[in-house]
Amino acid sequence: MKNCIIAQSGGPTTAINASLAGVLVENEESHYFDTIYGSINGVTGIFTENILNLSEKIQNIPGFIDKLKVTPAMYLGSCRYKLPSPEDDTDTYNKIFSFFEKYEIDSFFYIGGNDSMDTVLKLSDYAKSIGSSVKIIGIPKTIDNDLCGTDHTPGFGSAAKYVAASLLEIAHDTYIYPVKSVTIVEIMGRDAGWLTAASALARNEYSNAPHLIYLPERAFDIDSFVSDVKKLLETQNSVVVAVSEGIRDKDGNYICNTGAGTDNFGHQQLSGAGKALEGIVADRIGVKVRSVEINILQRCAAHLSSLTDLDESMMQGQKALSLAVEGTSGVMVMLKRLSNNPYSVSTDYMDIHDAANLVKNVPTEWISPEGNDVTEEMMTYLRPLIVGEPTVTYKNGLPEYLSVEHLFAT
Amino acid sequence: MKNCIIAQSGGPTTAINASLAGVLVENEESHYFDTIYGSINGVTGIFTENILNLSEKIQNIPGFIDKLKVTPAMYLGSCRYKLPSPEDDTDTYNKIFSFFEKYEIDSFFYIGGNDSMDTVLKLSDYAKSIGSSVKIIGIPKTIDNDLCGTDHTPGFGSAAKYVAASLLEIAHDTYIYPVKSVTIVEIMGRDAGWLTAASALARNEYSNAPHLIYLPERAFDIDSFVSDVKKLLETQNSVVVAVSEGIRDKDGNYICNTGAGTDNFGHQQLSGAGKALEGIVADRIGVKVRSVEINILQRCAAHLSSLTDLDESMMQGQKALSLAVEGTSGVMVMLKRLSNNPYSVSTDYMDIHDAANLVKNVPTEWISPEGNDVTEEMMTYLRPLIVGEPTVTYKNGLPEYLSVEHLFAT
Repeated sequence: MKNCIIAQSGGPTTAINASLAGVLVENEESHYFDTIYGSINGVTGIFTENILNLSEKIQNIPGFIDKLKVTPAMYLGSCRYKLPSPEDDTDTYNKIFSFFEKYEIDSFFYIGGNDSMDTVLKLSDYAKSIGSSVKIIGIPKTIDNDLCGTDHTPGFGSAAKYVAASLLEIAHDTYIYPVKSVTIVEIMGRDAGWLTAASALARNEYSNAPHLIYLPERAFDIDSFVSDVKKLLETQNSVVVAVSEGIRDKDGNYICNTGAGTDNFGHQQLSGAGKALEGIVADRIGVKVRSVEINILQRCAAHLSSLTDLDESMMQGQKALSLAVEGTSGVMVMLKRLSNNPYSVSTDYMDIHDAANLVKNVPTEWISPEGNDVTEEMMTYLRPLIVGEPTVTYKNGLPEYLSVEHLFAT
Repeated sequence: MKNCIIAQSGGPTTAINASLAGVLVENEESHYFDTIYGSINGVTGIFTENILNLSEKIQNIPGFIDKLKVTPAMYLGSCRYKLPSPEDDTDTYNKIFSFFEKYEIDSFFYIGGNDSMDTVLKLSDYAKSIGSSVKIIGIPKTIDNDLCGTDHTPGFGSAAKYVAASLLEIAHDTYIYPVKSVTIVEIMGRDAGWLTAASALARNEYSNAPHLIYLPERAFDIDSFVSDVKKLLETQNSVVVAVSEGIRDKDGNYICNTGAGTDNFGHQQLSGAGKALEGIVADRIGVKVRSVEINILQRCAAHLSSLTDLDESMMQGQKALSLAVEGTSGVMVMLKRLSNNPYSVSTDYMDIHDAANLVKNVPTEWISPEGNDVTEEMMTYLRPLIVGEPTVTYKNGLPEYLSVEHLFAT
């Protein structure tokens, strides 16, 4: 018997289940693994043997893989668990590798973001250190697009499409009144401005919204912002501003009204850049102003996914399985862009040591000199990623997704 | 020459342009009017002769009517203008009726909400008083569904679909972590809870979210809320709460953190019910909590419109034109539900005096006795309204809508 187990971790995206679908689809072709297990709630499912037999799901649920591809968030659930180092906690590693032995696990696939790649690094190093042949392979996803090495990260394209479509629809909403108004749209992205940059894709032949874009990679200056907005209001009624939740002033202080606590990985929890700018416009410009927080739907609105994104996410899952078959371990799958016109990518992989715990920010030269827009290079990079619409079926007027009842045990 | 003019007013919906399309399509059949004009920014476009020749648009823009049907917000722009009574301001009425004479206007169609129907009432009464033969006809729309007389209001079904789909996708997002958590989703609806009630449509075979629903029609009791949430947390990890922005305590005080000013019609501007409940959960229950404000996309996310809604909105426009042809004035078009199974409606009309300035709230008997859910009668009423998906074309990954450049003049 040769089995494998897959887990998912980190924040949701609409494309993470497509990577899971990719592993499954590839095995349907090769039949390399006898049984594919899913670990519920990331690596923590392994500790409690809370697992799902995915091979059975494929057999029992008609169209399982196709539906999985378009189902948002994590079919296997997630965790926010930081694996300790083996020196600090050998027990945990013993537990994991005993599980692997018991279930005849040949390969472990971990689909996740930066923090999950840290787990892949630790587990693969540990496997090597004990002479285990279990392959440990990372499959990246993040709406933030801040993973190093890969051209872009699955999950980003769909979030970018959601952000751009929302910006376009919000722009239509703002154009209806013949009064001076400012609309601030706050977009996710703690340290990396990729998703906020993607708002620029909303621009078309008739609408130039967002008219201003501020990323966390550039120090935010309140006076410049006020002057940017005032200048635009001289010649147009509606000014739409896209702003990252993570904008900071030159001293590194967040531009926000609130900010409470940190998550398990020490990241500061943010909210309020939009509200803060709304207050600034009200005080210093005095026109009609509204702030809109593009909420968690930017990471879970699967009905508006990018087909390019889902397809690439699936390709990553397929590549991961083929790497396992070849005996590769301690790597992260990645995407290489071969060409922009026509757009094409291939999958590849890199040593997990070169991938984990590094953050990819927007390059300075892709931000306009004034710091209030992105450049044409950025647009060339972004454009292909949101193209295409997946086939989402609707039932009674709502998208049909896979049941996630197996996550409900308390 | 016999011409007509159409205007739109009030807040945007994704279905209001479908009513405009309905008038146009009906005239393409009957050719009753020689030229159809659009007044830019509601009735105020008439004052400044800021008008658009819609008949020319149909001729010059291929597929104009089809694209118009799915374009969000108002193609003709909006206004927040309260027409004075003729006794207070005869000049304004003179201006409007001089315009009608100059442009040989036979009929004026006003597509809008409660406040717009007030304008229809005043103009039609005035027309009668001066013996003018100009027909004044109201075509209702509002995402709030709070207009009296009609079974439901175009714009509501699409907003309801957006709210329900968002709730479902947010539910998927909340199910991934095996920790106790509460997610508060704040939904538009100042006085009427129809849209918040529609969140219940998100429930399906595997997901019962939203688990609690609070409407403004029932006094909100903080202790009951806390106890409702605590009870659910005993048996499930994730509790999703749908709450109207307009919830009030038994003394009529809004449950909100902020509340600033009033609009031109004296309505209090609200925000923060979701944030307020988030704080209450954090303080009194102490579990992970997040609030999500379903933002203005609930009224402008045309890519997720209800086809039933758009079709009915169009039918209303068609009916309005046929009423004008018959010489009817001082009326509001309405929808009559003929049957639930199979669902069918017909268009009708009512005297504008019976329609304007009245608000239709959710009937008490459609709210659960505990005040934290809606009843099966409500579900039967809601279900058909979100059914069907319009054909939205995409270009470069984004929905293709009509240009609204004609609204940009400053």
